[in-house]
Amino acid sequence: MKLRFGMVGGGEGSMIGPVHRLAAQHSGEAELVCGAFSSTPDRSYRSGQRLYQLAAHRCYASYSDMFAKEAALPADKRMNFVVIATPNHLHFPVAMAALAAGFHVVCDKPLTHDFNQAQLLRRRVLDSGLQFAVTYNYSGYAMLQEARDLVSRGSFGSLRRISCEYLQGWLAVDMRTNKQAQWRTDPVRAGSAGCFGDIGSHGYHLMEYVSGLPVTWVCADLSKHVPGRQLDDDGNVLLRFAGGAKGVLSASQVAAGEDNDIQIKVFGELGGFSWRLGEPDILNVRWLSEPNEVRRAKNDAELAPKRSIAGAPDGYLDAFAEIYRRFFAQLKGESHRGFPTIEEGVRGMQFLAAVVRSDEQGATWQPL
Amino acid sequence: MKLRFGMVGGGEGSMIGPVHRLAAQHSGEAELVCGAFSSTPDRSYRSGQRLYQLAAHRCYASYSDMFAKEAALPADKRMNFVVIATPNHLHFPVAMAALAAGFHVVCDKPLTHDFNQAQLLRRRVLDSGLQFAVTYNYSGYAMLQEARDLVSRGSFGSLRRISCEYLQGWLAVDMRTNKQAQWRTDPVRAGSAGCFGDIGSHGYHLMEYVSGLPVTWVCADLSKHVPGRQLDDDGNVLLRFAGGAKGVLSASQVAAGEDNDIQIKVFGELGGFSWRLGEPDILNVRWLSEPNEVRRAKNDAELAPKRSIAGAPDGYLDAFAEIYRRFFAQLKGESHRGFPTIEEGVRGMQFLAAVVRSDEQGATWQPL
Amino acid sequence: MKLRFGMVGGGEGSMIGPVHRLAAQHSGEAELVCGAFSSTPDRSYRSGQRLYQLAAHRCYASYSDMFAKEAALPADKRMNFVVIATPNHLHFPVAMAALAAGFHVVCDKPLTHDFNQAQLLRRRVLDSGLQFAVTYNYSGYAMLQEARDLVSRGSFGSLRRISCEYLQGWLAVDMRTNKQAQWRTDPVRAGSAGCFGDIGSHGYHLMEYVSGLPVTWVCADLSKHVPGRQLDDDGNVLLRFAGGAKGVLSASQVAAGEDNDIQIKVFGELGGFSWRLGEPDILNVRWLSEPNEVRRAKNDAELAPKRSIAGAPDGYLDAFAEIYRRFFAQLKGESHRGFPTIEEGVRGMQFLAAVVRSDEQGATWQPL
Amino acid sequence: MKLRFGMVGGGEGSMIGPVHRLAAQHSGEAELVCGAFSSTPDRSYRSGQRLYQLAAHRCYASYSDMFAKEAALPADKRMNFVVIATPNHLHFPVAMAALAAGFHVVCDKPLTHDFNQAQLLRRRVLDSGLQFAVTYNYSGYAMLQEARDLVSRGSFGSLRRISCEYLQGWLAVDMRTNKQAQWRTDPVRAGSAGCFGDIGSHGYHLMEYVSGLPVTWVCADLSKHVPGRQLDDDGNVLLRFAGGAKGVLSASQVAAGEDNDIQIKVFGELGGFSWRLGEPDILNVRWLSEPNEVRRAKNDAELAPKRSIAGAPDGYLDAFAEIYRRFFAQLKGESHRGFPTIEEGVRGMQFLAAVVRSDEQGATWQPL
Repeated sequence: MKLRFGMVGGGEGSMIGPVHRLAAQHSGEAELVCGAFSSTPDRSYRSGQRLYQLAAHRCYASYSDMFAKEAALPADKRMNFVVIATPNHLHFPVAMAALAAGFHVVCDKPLTHDFNQAQLLRRRVLDSGLQFAVTYNYSGYAMLQEARDLVSRGSFGSLRRISCEYLQGWLAVDMRTNKQAQWRTDPVRAGSAGCFGDIGSHGYHLMEYVSGLPVTWVCADLSKHVPGRQLDDDGNVLLRFAGGAKGVLSASQVAAGEDNDIQIKVFGELGGFSWRLGEPDILNVRWLSEPNEVRRAKNDAELAPKRSIAGAPDGYLDAFAEIYRRFFAQLKGESHRGFPTIEEGVRGMQFLAAVVRSDEQGATWQPL
Repeated sequence: MKLRFGMVGGGEGSMIGPVHRLAAQHSGEAELVCGAFSSTPDRSYRSGQRLYQLAAHRCYASYSDMFAKEAALPADKRMNFVVIATPNHLHFPVAMAALAAGFHVVCDKPLTHDFNQAQLLRRRVLDSGLQFAVTYNYSGYAMLQEARDLVSRGSFGSLRRISCEYLQGWLAVDMRTNKQAQWRTDPVRAGSAGCFGDIGSHGYHLMEYVSGLPVTWVCADLSKHVPGRQLDDDGNVLLRFAGGAKGVLSASQVAAGEDNDIQIKVFGELGGFSWRLGEPDILNVRWLSEPNEVRRAKNDAELAPKRSIAGAPDGYLDAFAEIYRRFFAQLKGESHRGFPTIEEGVRGMQFLAAVVRSDEQGATWQPL
Repeated sequence: MKLRFGMVGGGEGSMIGPVHRLAAQHSGEAELVCGAFSSTPDRSYRSGQRLYQLAAHRCYASYSDMFAKEAALPADKRMNFVVIATPNHLHFPVAMAALAAGFHVVCDKPLTHDFNQAQLLRRRVLDSGLQFAVTYNYSGYAMLQEARDLVSRGSFGSLRRISCEYLQGWLAVDMRTNKQAQWRTDPVRAGSAGCFGDIGSHGYHLMEYVSGLPVTWVCADLSKHVPGRQLDDDGNVLLRFAGGAKGVLSASQVAAGEDNDIQIKVFGELGGFSWRLGEPDILNVRWLSEPNEVRRAKNDAELAPKRSIAGAPDGYLDAFAEIYRRFFAQLKGESHRGFPTIEEGVRGMQFLAAVVRSDEQGATWQPL
Repeated sequence: MKLRFGMVGGGEGSMIGPVHRLAAQHSGEAELVCGAFSSTPDRSYRSGQRLYQLAAHRCYASYSDMFAKEAALPADKRMNFVVIATPNHLHFPVAMAALAAGFHVVCDKPLTHDFNQAQLLRRRVLDSGLQFAVTYNYSGYAMLQEARDLVSRGSFGSLRRISCEYLQGWLAVDMRTNKQAQWRTDPVRAGSAGCFGDIGSHGYHLMEYVSGLPVTWVCADLSKHVPGRQLDDDGNVLLRFAGGAKGVLSASQVAAGEDNDIQIKVFGELGGFSWRLGEPDILNVRWLSEPNEVRRAKNDAELAPKRSIAGAPDGYLDAFAEIYRRFFAQLKGESHRGFPTIEEGVRGMQFLAAVVRSDEQGATWQPL
């Protein structure tokens, strides 16, 4: 039997809604069966029927309506989990309501509007016994799993330098007429971090994910380059990690001419690696005294169980789907390699709070 | 309403079956509803139920059984088209039967076992009035569409040099215990071309696709490097195109250490381009006297209607899905940018016949 | 007539001495005629005769001896300028003595042992009327000149983000038995900055060179990763530039597995560029709404007056030689595109002082 | 004592003359002392004095004059060897005269105007006992030496596929007003091969150099794309090597927008490598079942004796100089890694003759 899921948000004009649907359905294990796609009932109905080809009676006017009615359906009909694909400020109330109604949750990042909400939500998740995934989707790329494995096996020795750069250019001009830009640049809907909430949070997660080391201190210098912008659109953050590694996280949405480029580099006593989104199937591995390596998924069957498509580069969707695949394994009680949970979600919000506080206090050091 | 499709072949152990399913379902417009997944009824049932989660009564013992029973279903239940994902030698009988039963067809490449079959099949397709697509899936990458558009607009002037190199390494050793390798290296099931049938055919299609120029002469030097191999596993083919362009197509499945690397380069009087599968979102454009360009899909809205995921590299699946997307548009009477049809399929078989003949006759020139 | 030069330092075991000789002689306009190559007279004689094939009477026991005796030679025999290729702590006394003896100077970077010396030396240079070049050699690459020109013409609008990363790995382990490492990791000979003095200083110079913007504030977090190391071997520095641009400079000599990789990225309102040492003939130029460009020297005759070797990548030596070429033009009263002078040398020392102070005071912001 | 050399050709407007001078002087072991730089005495004098800063009495009106007068000088004054940097048709008479006068020779490629001359010259060289180098300069790159070593040690097993592509674009339009283009496109001065003589000959040499395998058969399809052109400006050649490897050599001087891009790929039973001029310090090594490697010179001390400049990419000149360095070692009786001799020069001419014959006879196979 396929898993059934509903979606909150993700309606007409949404960028990430269709991605969640495709990613969740990618493995053939799950199917979108219902949704409350917009804060306007009409748009929710229209999105559900036109965009997602759902039956009218599974398109709901609001998320509370959906949770109530789905919970009342027989067990073999009602949705098993809900995907939250709204602007950030709605993550918290929707997730709390979903958990209250007994549904597992997949929530987009950043987890909530602020760190307080994140802590409350974490408490609720732990009490509920329900599963909760946060879609830090880049951690689904096979070669970053490989990198994490190399680090955790000690192949590079103790880590020294961890850096990440995430550059986009689409907000290099005033984009206030663009739906995607509107809420991302609005403190009420996005939270107190703009560029760092939207993409810096991905970079932060990857750095902790591959290194296995928590960030302990941050010193952030953020910018609002575009006139009239209310949230950061660029910034650089000095980082210190447990165990003595140091690093820097750079993020920008005003890097004019860049589409979407993430790079991460890690160095330890014995070697290190680099990875970038542009060639995601490649992991460049460096060694102190051996020739450097170019690793690809082919070399590790465990990494690439799904890699029947020998050698063709994975796409964004494949990596996104990997997060879902592992979440499904968890729901089914099968073993898996892990996915970002409420804990990673909470840490992300703590990081953003520290970054914003550091910047507001004159780019001073803040503990995490 | 979603389009409904069945599959022939593509059962347990198939590489390309699951790819077709994912690609066809990618846009949310179609759904797999039935299949005859194996020449053994038991394996067909098992594949349909376990691999594809189909209801037992839509898993058929044979393709003839499937076509007969599906044709007898009411119009709103029966499949609309069939996907053929069998080894090459079955493409022809299955496609003929599907057309006879009134179903549109999506067929994997190469079209048939030999050129004769291809011509017969073409006749049948034209007589039937049904739609027929051949999944030369690499032509679904957005940047190759961009390349084709640049060429057809005359941006590069008259073309002079067209080359393509397609390298894989997985057949560098004897693989006769591997299911995927078995039929690909067996003349009875694969046809008279091995490496050139499997991957050289892709390269040939891309060269004509981007250039808009038919190949007119070939001179092929093929090899069977692995001891005991009955079909070519490597080769180089000199090409002449209508209008005076010349080129070379290289293909190898014994390029040890290569996964799956396709590159294509085209030069005309005023400039040219190169593209490679490793970074598929990039088109390198060269000009006689202007700075070279790196084009990405972002720069052309028409190219990237689906590119809501700003800037993240497309994967193999996205490009494969694009072929299906256009096929669906055709079925629905909507406008689209074209997909490989029976005509391209037939030309591919004609090319393979000429290549094999050239090689057999001492690497001499053969017309196409 | 060729220019004649002497060298101080650069004897047996020196890395940079032979580079200076080759770079200075590259254009055929200058010739090494004498030197005081070591602090030990015997080694100086041996280096001069064996390593540099000089006549015995032009190999001197000390630099003071050399300056005195060369100054006494007839004008058509004595050296015209001196190259200083000693460890850092000797730059100042040697340069002061050279100027006092009336010789033009080419000095390796960083300019001096500390900022105080740098200011004194600057005063002396200005009073002397002699020419003084500092070999920030990376600024000799043609494509960085192109980048600087694009910025200064306003092509990218007002700048927003400027970042540079310079990674080496050769000091990832204790190298105290290595002559090159010894003085670089010794505060007495290297100065108060280790990695930042040796390579961070190059990064800093390039950032100001291409942007045309002075750094105004720094916040530096330096590390001494290798046990027993007395000077920084890694670090990250937040930067603020005049006019509102911000950025980060990362440098490491413990990036295990890296040889010598410099990258620089600049973004403004309308576009930006990136450049890296690994492919130095390429400048990647990005535009807000136009396709990105890959520029090479061929496209600009002014950039490439010496580029008779069409299209072959420039090497380290070619770029180093370009600095000399311009210095010679200055000596001859010919026009040129500029080279790093005493002013850039002094700014580099001011930057290092601010970086070290920032780090010592807990990674706090320091003005420049 | 430095070696002394003279030059024939290479005067004003020459591209390769100054390169030879720089490359020969690069190691500090040799010095240009005389020359006959042009077929016009006046231009020869002017070039020698202005371009090369030579004393007037060492600038000669003709090469025969030079050989006669230099031979009459005392042994410690006269040149030790001559560099031939003329258009192709003069290589033969100049080399014959130089040998007759007792001078060692460094000759540019291709060796002579035709294969006949090459054979005669070879006889003369062998009889003379003098040293003779041909500047196939690309074989001076350290990483191609590494590739050759890997092949000869059997690391890749028996070779199967060897391919090379050399693309330039500067002749994409009629260049008959350009001095460099004039003689290269003139059969009287260049010989019977145009693009293949000028750059295809480099590719051919590299293929045999790295593989250690002689080409045994060729099938060439050449083109004259630019209207009015008398010699090939583009072509593709199928190749068979001793031992069963096959391959293809592509060369073009009409690849509009390309500067000077050489790539070579070799595959054997166990792995292979690729190299390209754009990143010459990198050798990509592929293995059947191990992760691929990125090798750099740092990993092999023997490869990089001169690599005091840790990690900075070598340039065209460094590699060119390596050929000279080895030639000097030969003259001095020191051990070295080999350089292209008269034998490689003769084979190059035999290859060109076979290529042209194959093309003229309808792109048929010709033995070598």
